[in-house]
Amino acid sequence: MEEERQRPLNGGSSILVLHDALIVTMDSQCRVFRNGAVAIQGDTIIAVGQSQDIISHFSSLSPQLFNLHGNFLLPGLINTHVHTSQQLARGIADDVDLLTWLHGRIWPYESNMTEEDSYLSTLLCGIELIHSGVTCFAEAGGQHVSGMARAVELLGIRACLTQSVMDSGEGLPESWAERTAHECIQSQKDLHKKHHNTADGRIRIWFGLRQIMNSTDRLLVETRDAAKELNTGIHMHVAEIPYENELVVERQGVDHGTVTYLDKIELLQSNLLAAHSVWVNEDEIGLLSRSGVKVSHCPAAAMHMLGFAPIREMIDAGVCVSLGTDGAPSNNRMSIVDEMYLASLINKGREVFSKGTTDPTALPAETILEMATINGAKSVLWDKEIGSLDVGKKADMIVVNPCSWTMMPIHDCISSLVYCMRSENITSLMCNGRWVMVDKKILILNEEEVIAKAQKVSGDLLKRAGIQIPTRMNFL
Amino acid sequence: MEEERQRPLNGGSSILVLHDALIVTMDSQCRVFRNGAVAIQGDTIIAVGQSQDIISHFSSLSPQLFNLHGNFLLPGLINTHVHTSQQLARGIADDVDLLTWLHGRIWPYESNMTEEDSYLSTLLCGIELIHSGVTCFAEAGGQHVSGMARAVELLGIRACLTQSVMDSGEGLPESWAERTAHECIQSQKDLHKKHHNTADGRIRIWFGLRQIMNSTDRLLVETRDAAKELNTGIHMHVAEIPYENELVVERQGVDHGTVTYLDKIELLQSNLLAAHSVWVNEDEIGLLSRSGVKVSHCPAAAMHMLGFAPIREMIDAGVCVSLGTDGAPSNNRMSIVDEMYLASLINKGREVFSKGTTDPTALPAETILEMATINGAKSVLWDKEIGSLDVGKKADMIVVNPCSWTMMPIHDCISSLVYCMRSENITSLMCNGRWVMVDKKILILNEEEVIAKAQKVSGDLLKRAGIQIPTRMNFL
Repeated sequence: MEEERQRPLNGGSSILVLHDALIVTMDSQCRVFRNGAVAIQGDTIIAVGQSQDIISHFSSLSPQLFNLHGNFLLPGLINTHVHTSQQLARGIADDVDLLTWLHGRIWPYESNMTEEDSYLSTLLCGIELIHSGVTCFAEAGGQHVSGMARAVELLGIRACLTQSVMDSGEGLPESWAERTAHECIQSQKDLHKKHHNTADGRIRIWFGLRQIMNSTDRLLVETRDAAKELNTGIHMHVAEIPYENELVVERQGVDHGTVTYLDKIELLQSNLLAAHSVWVNEDEIGLLSRSGVKVSHCPAAAMHMLGFAPIREMIDAGVCVSLGTDGAPSNNRMSIVDEMYLASLINKGREVFSKGTTDPTALPAETILEMATINGAKSVLWDKEIGSLDVGKKADMIVVNPCSWTMMPIHDCISSLVYCMRSENITSLMCNGRWVMVDKKILILNEEEVIAKAQKVSGDLLKRAGIQIPTRMNFL
Repeated sequence: MEEERQRPLNGGSSILVLHDALIVTMDSQCRVFRNGAVAIQGDTIIAVGQSQDIISHFSSLSPQLFNLHGNFLLPGLINTHVHTSQQLARGIADDVDLLTWLHGRIWPYESNMTEEDSYLSTLLCGIELIHSGVTCFAEAGGQHVSGMARAVELLGIRACLTQSVMDSGEGLPESWAERTAHECIQSQKDLHKKHHNTADGRIRIWFGLRQIMNSTDRLLVETRDAAKELNTGIHMHVAEIPYENELVVERQGVDHGTVTYLDKIELLQSNLLAAHSVWVNEDEIGLLSRSGVKVSHCPAAAMHMLGFAPIREMIDAGVCVSLGTDGAPSNNRMSIVDEMYLASLINKGREVFSKGTTDPTALPAETILEMATINGAKSVLWDKEIGSLDVGKKADMIVVNPCSWTMMPIHDCISSLVYCMRSENITSLMCNGRWVMVDKKILILNEEEVIAKAQKVSGDLLKRAGIQIPTRMNFL
């Protein structure tokens, strides 16, 4: 059974042709085929083009034909910052101040999780990610990477998994307070050895840094070197709140904040995925650009907790910006589809503070689609294999049915995908050449069972962690 | 058949009891029944309470029982600013500057609509509203009120319909340019006579003012008086862009802008629904509060086009603020469910500009729910009959199924409704005692037919209006 699951459903060497689709390739020429087809062999795209050309080209090989009846076909979406371990914590920290959020809710929650909780949380989050069209995600950092890896193996999608790493900081839970930089690095090297490039190559292990206020200099520098040694990425929360920058200025004597300091210690490199990066100034945007750092923009979490990142300025400066949902207690909706809509709105609106009026032309739909696809792939250092529908890349893609009240009428199909599409328009999802979801049904697990178990297990976890959520309104 | 449709499905005098629901009443005591029931007779709620009490109380009358199996029951949501005539224009004006938006797209579109187009557009928009839980909306102003009224009669929901009214301004389409204030008022009085209080009382006719830059003083003052005479409301776009305020200051010699001027001419009254109201200063917030003006906050449209309205300040000052989607070309998603989520995020984020950091405690979930229900009812001057589940009010309500990956796990059901719920969680909708949607199926029309017709008719309309949408990307 295990082997069966690992094998592409379309067979090892037979060819599958998805045809009669409007294909938004997101390739370097921005090609869109009005009536296009994609041919897939094993886990790989072997042809993209006009339906009749592809069908005729492969006809002698008796391919399996799959008619998409005019539905849209896109590369799978990529979520570059998501705490899958926090899915069970949805709703535990709404409408509370930042200190309560962190010390009263999130840390007690995370520090009381078992590996089994983490497995279940990632499974539940994965269900939401798949329904929202995500074929690849970058985990923002959790406690039990092995639990996450087990879930990702089952889910059938792709992930860069990261441990949540801290070796200093105030108010840490007891069980975390004694970790040394050395232990942090060693633990991640062990995880890399155990899980990197497993699950048919769908799982990669990255290094994590929770944030600068929880990292000694030694941890920062050793992380930089260990990631280089293992040729992998670093995922870090960067410049989230003004206080963070103030602390860095005070402690390190640099003139602005986290990004300036990370440059000084040569951590700003092309393998750094800097989540949020809200509080960066013009010089720091230049540093991010020149060093090839990737930024994960999380619009909902930014609005909820952090502030307005200068995304237009970053894009203008050539920074590779992608999209993330952050975790459930920062956002509640783990949907890149909604983040596309939000990224457009919020960044158009934000212009009012620099120009005096909003700029409805800022971050147009095609830019947002790039952020959710090819820029996502670049951000997770995987763009040679994913992020666009190109020959030779992995077969990661989604089918969108636009014929519903959510999207019709359609006068501009590219903008419709960004501004109108909802997760419910995403009907099918393929990753690594395997169908993971067909007709909105995830093939490899029973959603209802996972959901029911999550409700129970998360209740137990909150009890264990001593987290009580105040009641709103007048319950009778 | 027509009569059959008008008759409440649960019969004229028999009693329907919806039970075993988590009922969020939104009444003045903020009561939530963990296992509650609502009894309905005809179009009216006759009891709200614990399930076993209600079932036992009515048992001798053999009520029809409807088990909601733990689903949530809420008052129908109210959308206080929506251009239903613009639904066919979804996607015609994405990512363009304001002048192109108005003169190049919206005015040509609206001025070329027929009454039949308007009927179809309102039908299509109504489908989206119903799926998003809306039982009542305030039309923001369109050309063919009779077309809208025909659609609302069929849709089975409740509406305050408004004509789009202008008697001056630059760049108007030829067919609109010659309208006089007198004609505008007379036309609306005729519509009031014809449609007000029709469709079992579900349709009300309001007066419209498109915006101050398209209104002579005579039109403003006569609208004020005519609305008073007919005891109805006025729906107007207010303080949308800085230029509007500048023009008012220049022309009228007041010291700030539209709100200040409307106060001067005594148009600020409790029957005014002021849409957007983005560019208002502290004094003007005081004026809105003291005069009892209602504000429709449209978060998506604000971010896209207008800017950040000082919503927290308005609420703190006691202004009744409700939620609107605006029209499809300003937002694309006509979902109050999404607007609830957005209103929370954007107004938490906006605090960064006054306080230096976001305020995650601003506009908590219960405030947002009020905006979408009871404040909506107050805004459309209908709160004696709708906006909460109270005895004596009309039976307008929605059933929410929270048991899906979009909302689970639930640790705080009130915040879940605001931050996690999506339109797909709304399964059934009742308006005026009649089921309009059951198990996500709208009972009175064929969605697919409406959608297919809308796609065709809207294409024809764009051609007629000479609107061409530039192609994005590289279509092959």
